Amino acid sequence: MKLEGLSIIGGRRGAPGGKKFTGINPSTGAPLPGEFHSASDAEVDAAARLASAAFSVFAQWPGAQRAALLDRIAALLEANGQSILERANLETALPPARLQGELARTCFQLRLCGEAARTGLCAGARIDHADPNRKPLPKPDLRSVMQPAGPVAVFGASNFPLAFSVAGGDAASALAAGCPIIVKAHPAHPGTSELVGQLIAEAVLESGAPDGLFSLLFDAGFDAGAALVGHPLIKAVGFTGSRRGGRALMDIAAARPEPIPVFAEMSSINPVFILAGALAGRAEQIATGLHGSVVLGVGQFCTNPGLVFIPAGEGTKPFLATLENLIAATPPGTMLTPGICAAYRKGVEKLSSAPGVRRAAISPADPAAGPAIAGAALFATAAETLFGNPSLMEEVFGPSTLVVECASREQMLEAASRIEGQLTATIHATPDELHANGDLVAILSNKAGRLLFNGFPTGVEVAHAMTHGGPFPATSDGRSTSVGTRAIERFLRPVSYQDFPDPVLPPELQEANPLGLTRLIDGKWRLA
Amino acid sequence: MKLEGLSIIGGRRGAPGGKKFTGINPSTGAPLPGEFHSASDAEVDAAARLASAAFSVFAQWPGAQRAALLDRIAALLEANGQSILERANLETALPPARLQGELARTCFQLRLCGEAARTGLCAGARIDHADPNRKPLPKPDLRSVMQPAGPVAVFGASNFPLAFSVAGGDAASALAAGCPIIVKAHPAHPGTSELVGQLIAEAVLESGAPDGLFSLLFDAGFDAGAALVGHPLIKAVGFTGSRRGGRALMDIAAARPEPIPVFAEMSSINPVFILAGALAGRAEQIATGLHGSVVLGVGQFCTNPGLVFIPAGEGTKPFLATLENLIAATPPGTMLTPGICAAYRKGVEKLSSAPGVRRAAISPADPAAGPAIAGAALFATAAETLFGNPSLMEEVFGPSTLVVECASREQMLEAASRIEGQLTATIHATPDELHANGDLVAILSNKAGRLLFNGFPTGVEVAHAMTHGGPFPATSDGRSTSVGTRAIERFLRPVSYQDFPDPVLPPELQEANPLGLTRLIDGKWRLA
Repeated sequence: MKLEGLSIIGGRRGAPGGKKFTGINPSTGAPLPGEFHSASDAEVDAAARLASAAFSVFAQWPGAQRAALLDRIAALLEANGQSILERANLETALPPARLQGELARTCFQLRLCGEAARTGLCAGARIDHADPNRKPLPKPDLRSVMQPAGPVAVFGASNFPLAFSVAGGDAASALAAGCPIIVKAHPAHPGTSELVGQLIAEAVLESGAPDGLFSLLFDAGFDAGAALVGHPLIKAVGFTGSRRGGRALMDIAAARPEPIPVFAEMSSINPVFILAGALAGRAEQIATGLHGSVVLGVGQFCTNPGLVFIPAGEGTKPFLATLENLIAATPPGTMLTPGICAAYRKGVEKLSSAPGVRRAAISPADPAAGPAIAGAALFATAAETLFGNPSLMEEVFGPSTLVVECASREQMLEAASRIEGQLTATIHATPDELHANGDLVAILSNKAGRLLFNGFPTGVEVAHAMTHGGPFPATSDGRSTSVGTRAIERFLRPVSYQDFPDPVLPPELQEANPLGLTRLIDGKWRLA
Repeated sequence: MKLEGLSIIGGRRGAPGGKKFTGINPSTGAPLPGEFHSASDAEVDAAARLASAAFSVFAQWPGAQRAALLDRIAALLEANGQSILERANLETALPPARLQGELARTCFQLRLCGEAARTGLCAGARIDHADPNRKPLPKPDLRSVMQPAGPVAVFGASNFPLAFSVAGGDAASALAAGCPIIVKAHPAHPGTSELVGQLIAEAVLESGAPDGLFSLLFDAGFDAGAALVGHPLIKAVGFTGSRRGGRALMDIAAARPEPIPVFAEMSSINPVFILAGALAGRAEQIATGLHGSVVLGVGQFCTNPGLVFIPAGEGTKPFLATLENLIAATPPGTMLTPGICAAYRKGVEKLSSAPGVRRAAISPADPAAGPAIAGAALFATAAETLFGNPSLMEEVFGPSTLVVECASREQMLEAASRIEGQLTATIHATPDELHANGDLVAILSNKAGRLLFNGFPTGVEVAHAMTHGGPFPATSDGRSTSVGTRAIERFLRPVSYQDFPDPVLPPELQEANPLGLTRLIDGKWRLA
């Protein structure tokens, strides 16, 4: 596989001429081989037009045909895994084992979305039969099914160069829904993006789909992404990244003559609430698990736990002592980019100098060891301090967490009700304690997309029951998830057919149920 | 029942003092008895705080309890129907039979949403069982269920003083979802709004729910509505009305520090495509049905057909002649308000003076007969003229339609692809023609929420399979419907529970399935 450094516009390559950039090795700061050329506005426009033309064909494809395409993309990724993993390691400093796991996750996700397309999992078919004898007016035959929304703009994330990038969850779910995709590559891993993009383009070509089904845009800055989200032929946006970046896209989309939905997964501090019984019984175990979750992948997960609430008092000592020791002993790691590392250092500095916040432990990181080297950090404070300084609840992206001591149960509830929207919220408790704290569970269920009991939030299952979403600012739209098969629903809309002859209906709605779907018929669920 | 003219803020009445207004009899222009006092910003804030407090209780109510509340509201509306219908007739000039039908529809809708809450139709429960032996990591137990989003702002519509107003579809679906509502009354029917609001407040009180579950705000202008949509404790908005009004709310919601979803149903011209075979075989029947749909309720339906595409040529004559005669003979009717009538007259004037547009028929309306009196109007043009002047495709709210002659099948497809998002699109054809025009069906399915075959778009079934929605500008969010049980989904969001002990899980997710739901278990649908 060879890097050309040019955008993929449908089946062709973009032109050189735009602003150039390279990948950077975050371990050394040195540029990596291969120059990448930013896409022009004309190329964005061409990609959008091709996608729109492809949509009219692709939207009519049976689910099984979409599934075959997704399966083929997964197979090509696996067959070319070695090249992809090597480049991804150079561009991100993520270790080979992690990247290997991420590739497996990416392929699993493509196939799971394909399986959902094949089985019509998201068809949502409903049939209300006619009643010609109804008074005062006859009742028509009415049937509805979920149909694809149109071309989708996808933004690759920095922290998952595979699973949330060119062939990641947004791409897989949009294709499963029947939507063409135009991916804006994340500039921190352009080579990985191009390698993956070439394989998707190859799979699209083999499949016989119109080549506009997939485009990949490079850009050193923000222009191509902004033009893409503003383009009238784009009908939805998928994004994983910073709160500022996601909000900028939301604002562009909302200001369009025709506003479109943006599914941005942005910012979460993933609070952990540890109740007294759990702290008394499992202090070391919880501290060890929490430490593992905080420092996993140098803390570069959306679900990294950045805030930990514990009851104040003597009982906290074994927990804090263990956690302090573990944090202090954490070996430094290389972050994804020097910029991300600089932001992390700034966040640690802000917490270090915040009045009333104790810097409980720091693992030293020698800047001479690399431009993106980061150590872990642990801070501690009291709930009153947090309440008086809400900026302490802002996400610090990296291996840092803030332990907050609550003077009472009421103060812990108050803390829960003050946090912003989250991807996850975790409770450590004995089963009896959990039962007695239904009010805490209720508050947190209104704040987060996923609640965990006696676990840790990193590690997001790709599953039917996963909600990787949550109220703003965790995401732009708390009714959505970007992981699991429900992610497909983001790119679908219901369409009703009234009094249509059976043979002209989409197969999902035909009386004989040729696809074997579970359907809502006259208000009752019916298995095939 | 007695009118006080004051907003309902939870269980109490608002204060007098805000700008005053009255209902207006559109038949005479005379003010109706009863003065209404605009809500203050402090009252909006109080209502939002009460709603937020009520949410924490109401969100925990079992579906059956919500259903009982909705049933009780319906029963109270029926028991007090006479007073409501009399006032509604005075405020809207809608005839008694129509209002009687609308009341029945409103009660049906409340009970259908209640039934959905009772049966857990929208629970969307999913269970992925744990697998402790999975490699490389054990798989957790993960379960997800739809939960209510929070307090909802509802805006009453002018054209349905009952079914899309204080106890209308948005209110019913939000309450069924588990969300408190704050309704902004439409100023064109304040008395009807207050009567209905009193009954909802009574039902809430009887039910034992916190009184903040329901508030009703009066406002002569736009301030209270804007403050409501901007309030940080409001989590979603339901609206039916003009494109300008809906867009203004969308813009406010998108600019909030925490953006929230707006479900605005706004603007639709509901195109009708008549193919040659249907025109040849059923010209008079189609013309008669179309006329009925255009003039129904003085054309004041969101689904009023405002654009009709026919093949050009000799074959159009019987159709046009019949339609012209029927339009010319249509008795004038009183519209909802003098303002709506003035806008209608302006729309008719614009079409009358548009170059290339023929005024085919007008039914005379004598302005001396009332300030809101309107006749029907029929215009005709060629597709080229329409393409050259897209403003001809803007909605004219009232009993007017524009017939567009297409020189070829390609031109009809071109027309279909040029229209904006619609609530409905209708095809009249022989079954063979429909089959041969799959491309037209496909284009229209991307443009509209509901496709009709050989019918007329007015008459929106309250049903499980109804989509009363469509791409912008038909609605603000083409993934939604404001009619039918899917409307409830607008106010829900998925929440996942990971490794929770069974007794602490929401009943929808408990292993024994105590609510008897159809659930997705390990990727397969299972009936109870």
